[in-house]
Amino acid sequence: MYRHIAMFKFNDDVGEADVSAIAQALSTLPEAIEQVRDYRHGSDLGLNDGNFDYVVVADFDSVDDYVTYRDHPIHQSLIKEHIAGRVANRAAIQYQFDT
Amino acid sequence: MYRHIAMFKFNDDVGEADVSAIAQALSTLPEAIEQVRDYRHGSDLGLNDGNFDYVVVADFDSVDDYVTYRDHPIHQSLIKEHIAGRVANRAAIQYQFDT
Repeated sequence: MYRHIAMFKFNDDVGEADVSAIAQALSTLPEAIEQVRDYRHGSDLGLNDGNFDYVVVADFDSVDDYVTYRDHPIHQSLIKEHIAGRVANRAAIQYQFDT
Repeated sequence: MYRHIAMFKFNDDVGEADVSAIAQALSTLPEAIEQVRDYRHGSDLGLNDGNFDYVVVADFDSVDDYVTYRDHPIHQSLIKEHIAGRVANRAAIQYQFDT
């Protein structure tokens, strides 16, 4: 299984309504992009200082499927509309693990 | 389900043998700490610029179980021995999702 993870720290002026809109938009992606095998996203629980604010974890059967998701116009449109202008910091990785 | 994610960027002098030692040490944690439900860790695949180098994803049934893992002496000892002095940057989050 191939897993993509992206964490975001939002700008100070990003409020709850913005985050709800991001969450709702992200929730449409697994149905819109058939290559997505599993998709789990959500806000930080506030347990530790210094954490990021939001995370997306997406699982795929192959690197090609991840790249299809990454470059998919629906995904890119979501990033442009909901995320790009709201993020102060981003941390990402893609890795493989045995199931 | 409650998920903890920690990404690491290693210092420039951290080599493959160090990363292998980290991976091997991490692989012992799910058996050592009974609260861990799922544990998937690995190195970045090198698909995108600016990524972090290594990630740990750990799933738990409750926040309490995560805190037990976080503060467990075996986990803390592993961090002290294998990770603390080798990390230039760390990104972390804990979040909840429906199964």
